[in-house]
Amino acid sequence: MKYSKLFGKTIKETPKDATLSSHKLLYRAGYIRESTAGRYYLLPLGIKVQQKIQQIIKEEMDKAGAQEMITPVLHPKELWKETNRTNSVGFELMSIKDRNEFEFVLGGTAEEMMVDLVRKFQISYKDLPFNLYQFSVKFRDELRARGGLLRVREFVMKDAYSFHTTEEDFKKEYQLMMDTYTRIFEKLGLKTTIVESDNGYIGGEYCHEFVVESEIGESKFLVTEDGSYAAHEDVAKFILENVSSDEQLKPMEDVLGKGIIGVEELAKFLKIPVEKTTKTILFETDKGKVIAAAVRGGFDINEVKLIHIIGCNGLKLASAETVKKVTGAEVGYAGVLNLPKEVKVYFDESMFGRKNFETGANRTNYHTINVNFGRDLPEPKEFYDFKLAKEGYISPDGQKLIAKRGIEVGNIFQLGFHYSSKMKGANFRDSDGKQKPYYMGCYGIGLGRTLATIVEVYNDDKGIIWPEAVAPYQVHIVGLDGLGEKEYKHLLAEGVETLFDDRLNLSAGEKFADADLIGIPYRVVVSKRTEDKLEVKKRSEKQTRFLALQSLLEMLKS
Amino acid sequence: MKYSKLFGKTIKETPKDATLSSHKLLYRAGYIRESTAGRYYLLPLGIKVQQKIQQIIKEEMDKAGAQEMITPVLHPKELWKETNRTNSVGFELMSIKDRNEFEFVLGGTAEEMMVDLVRKFQISYKDLPFNLYQFSVKFRDELRARGGLLRVREFVMKDAYSFHTTEEDFKKEYQLMMDTYTRIFEKLGLKTTIVESDNGYIGGEYCHEFVVESEIGESKFLVTEDGSYAAHEDVAKFILENVSSDEQLKPMEDVLGKGIIGVEELAKFLKIPVEKTTKTILFETDKGKVIAAAVRGGFDINEVKLIHIIGCNGLKLASAETVKKVTGAEVGYAGVLNLPKEVKVYFDESMFGRKNFETGANRTNYHTINVNFGRDLPEPKEFYDFKLAKEGYISPDGQKLIAKRGIEVGNIFQLGFHYSSKMKGANFRDSDGKQKPYYMGCYGIGLGRTLATIVEVYNDDKGIIWPEAVAPYQVHIVGLDGLGEKEYKHLLAEGVETLFDDRLNLSAGEKFADADLIGIPYRVVVSKRTEDKLEVKKRSEKQTRFLALQSLLEMLKS
Repeated sequence: MKYSKLFGKTIKETPKDATLSSHKLLYRAGYIRESTAGRYYLLPLGIKVQQKIQQIIKEEMDKAGAQEMITPVLHPKELWKETNRTNSVGFELMSIKDRNEFEFVLGGTAEEMMVDLVRKFQISYKDLPFNLYQFSVKFRDELRARGGLLRVREFVMKDAYSFHTTEEDFKKEYQLMMDTYTRIFEKLGLKTTIVESDNGYIGGEYCHEFVVESEIGESKFLVTEDGSYAAHEDVAKFILENVSSDEQLKPMEDVLGKGIIGVEELAKFLKIPVEKTTKTILFETDKGKVIAAAVRGGFDINEVKLIHIIGCNGLKLASAETVKKVTGAEVGYAGVLNLPKEVKVYFDESMFGRKNFETGANRTNYHTINVNFGRDLPEPKEFYDFKLAKEGYISPDGQKLIAKRGIEVGNIFQLGFHYSSKMKGANFRDSDGKQKPYYMGCYGIGLGRTLATIVEVYNDDKGIIWPEAVAPYQVHIVGLDGLGEKEYKHLLAEGVETLFDDRLNLSAGEKFADADLIGIPYRVVVSKRTEDKLEVKKRSEKQTRFLALQSLLEMLKS
Repeated sequence: MKYSKLFGKTIKETPKDATLSSHKLLYRAGYIRESTAGRYYLLPLGIKVQQKIQQIIKEEMDKAGAQEMITPVLHPKELWKETNRTNSVGFELMSIKDRNEFEFVLGGTAEEMMVDLVRKFQISYKDLPFNLYQFSVKFRDELRARGGLLRVREFVMKDAYSFHTTEEDFKKEYQLMMDTYTRIFEKLGLKTTIVESDNGYIGGEYCHEFVVESEIGESKFLVTEDGSYAAHEDVAKFILENVSSDEQLKPMEDVLGKGIIGVEELAKFLKIPVEKTTKTILFETDKGKVIAAAVRGGFDINEVKLIHIIGCNGLKLASAETVKKVTGAEVGYAGVLNLPKEVKVYFDESMFGRKNFETGANRTNYHTINVNFGRDLPEPKEFYDFKLAKEGYISPDGQKLIAKRGIEVGNIFQLGFHYSSKMKGANFRDSDGKQKPYYMGCYGIGLGRTLATIVEVYNDDKGIIWPEAVAPYQVHIVGLDGLGEKEYKHLLAEGVETLFDDRLNLSAGEKFADADLIGIPYRVVVSKRTEDKLEVKKRSEKQTRFLALQSLLEMLKS
């Protein structure tokens, strides 16, 4: 490609809202342009990179025996109703009616579509297992889209869905996909951590994220030093320190403590250890029910864990008005005592076995101390785990947890019977002649986000530094003194993907800056000064070499 | 691929609504499944064919210097309002709002999106020309979708858009795209006729369809025997026979002629030649205006031509009620005399120079004869061409027109300044420093329809007969007696795309029937009977050959 003819040249400005390197560099170097917030054009350079990523994913998926196909973009809404996902997905789902008033959703993932396809066939145990995948445009009506290709409203996703006779058979595929993903990301130049994570609205019992460590990532996860345990903040477990339980019960009393904010300040004021305090938070579920959640002072509440425990689709903090109505007190004095019967209280495991603990008095400005289960309120029937894990806590396997951030580039989900049990006819004929629901898994990689993540990892202050596997071109010829055409044609004839900066009236410096910004692995300068030698420099290295064209070709092919 | 593992096996039944070969065969052979009317899954076999078609198109587009990129699927509706296409496209356009109440349309074509992208750049005459193309999902909210992949509501289209400084420069690209399309379809095994056609809601002044002749096609076109002229029925021109004009004017009179339907019957009844009769039709435009259109008896009205002449977006026949209101008569007696002033009468060229002609009397049961311009009604200021061409008429270059039907697989459009004049800032800086609108063209190919058309052309009573260029696999090994695995592995190792029917407990006959249905170019039977020889048969031929594996490989590679 001649740069003079390329659509989408470099510019100096960055978009006003761009804060991330990948956003700024992809924009400046001419890979992307925004249409509306979170919806991007991929320019000629951009689509080349995405296609390389796609090809690498395709090769590895095919090697793993998965079969490519494609579903329509518009999914009949009735399918999403069959699995109740129209409710669980909420606002992220976009709906549309056709002229015949038939309702569709713009696909965000395709579990229902795949099951609906598979149930059109008479599947027997002999046909199973299979894994169907597609590259297709997906839609997420995110409230805020920002960060270039990292969080968008429309993107190409590789999504795969596997169907099995048994859980055991599924587990083999889950491991195979885990290995396949690891290999895909390695080939793309990305080092990933496999992190236990939350299944969101996908369903199923467990899942894993593939996360590339990065300061700018939105995935917070905790990991042990040796990597034996890694889990997203939303689901991470940890070992609780023991609470001494041989205390004598003391008389309960209300203490005035006006305007004291936070458990540390409260503990100081009451002259008790923080572990004696309690954090009680009131929430409203997506169905408008008010609940209370209580953890021992010092811990925070993990809303994602709590949502799963409650079995709702969303939580928000109760309004000051609701708090007043339910507790009779202003915000800041909610506690576990004497709440109205209709407000269910969820106790975290950290509440188990406590004695003489503090709690808000449900009375403005007051705290109650020396509260005891069995005496002041009934012994809870169940304790749950909804504490937020933090750096320094101890992992389930006994090591210190380290907090990290990263970008989620892929994920794999056990789905089990989540879909096949809800959707009628989602069965196969087993060897015993009986119809049984299939056991499922699903596996996703967002292509645009992967592309941006590569840029986040591979860049310097001058621009992008593409790994060869995904670079839009392998060689960037910088033609000076009107030269370069001959070398360009030669490289093309040899099948080398080459971008040729053939522009006249530009200084060498300007052309070098553009080459650095665009980030193609090999920069080759053709100029009078170096006569029949070419000045070759790898984008990722500092030194330049002077090579004959033939030697350059040999180097590229080795 | 082992057939036992392939998702989407053959079945005997066809969909209830399937009438076309391509629909039935693609369904039965396991290439497609319908999700909802006009929205299809491409199964693993289907997507392989589509990808081969895509690759051939891509190679030829790249060779022609076009640059691939991609636009978002959701287009901001405001862009379509800028060009007033929200009105002209009408019901086929689907709209959707996001959670922020921002309005989008599901892209049907992408002219506005491309212009909106290009105007984000400071384009100079040095950057022009360029041709940007994409493969992307397109949406058409068709009232009725039927015929498998031939008329759908959602499909992948290659759409390209070229930008030029001048009309002359555009014309070179138009010719280049014409040649490129011809070559693409040739490579796909399709013989196309390039037919002048109507631009529908795309805009611009002229365009051409690439049509594959077929009895089941929806494109009706007229062509001369030597192909010197070919035009879609909607736009086809023809030479009018002369009307003698040396007659004496006769006295006009009203004649009773109750219930006489059609100009032939009327001519007989009135004892005048058909050429003396007039067909006057009342229409309502999409804006509710009533107009009249008059042609000489013997011709039909071409509504598409008429729409362009009027400059409206749609026409329907006026209701009986409207006819009564406007003419004062029942349907069947409308004429060009004494219509209310607000009803504009459009006269076809065939009305020019007529003397003593008949017209409906605008009076129930009556016809007026011996009508003359200048005496009985004013000489029309303008005559138009809105006659429908028919087989046997004479082409503009003096040859007999032959009527044909075909499937439109591609089209190319001159757009001129249609978009760049309507969209603000759609300019380039010319060499004189002035901002000027760019001159544009656009070029489309529907992939799914092309795929189905190939099947329409290449099939027999047993199934599909894929041309090698687009076949999902090159070789179909039919393993009998549990054999074939060795040959399968060998072919794979040699890079031959191979489908291996490894199923046990199926008769040779059943496997042969499946191979014929699926339509892979080479069928290779491995059985005990033929020992170390393979029974090789081309799907397109009758005779079988017995070859050693090595000879088969040589044949495949030659």
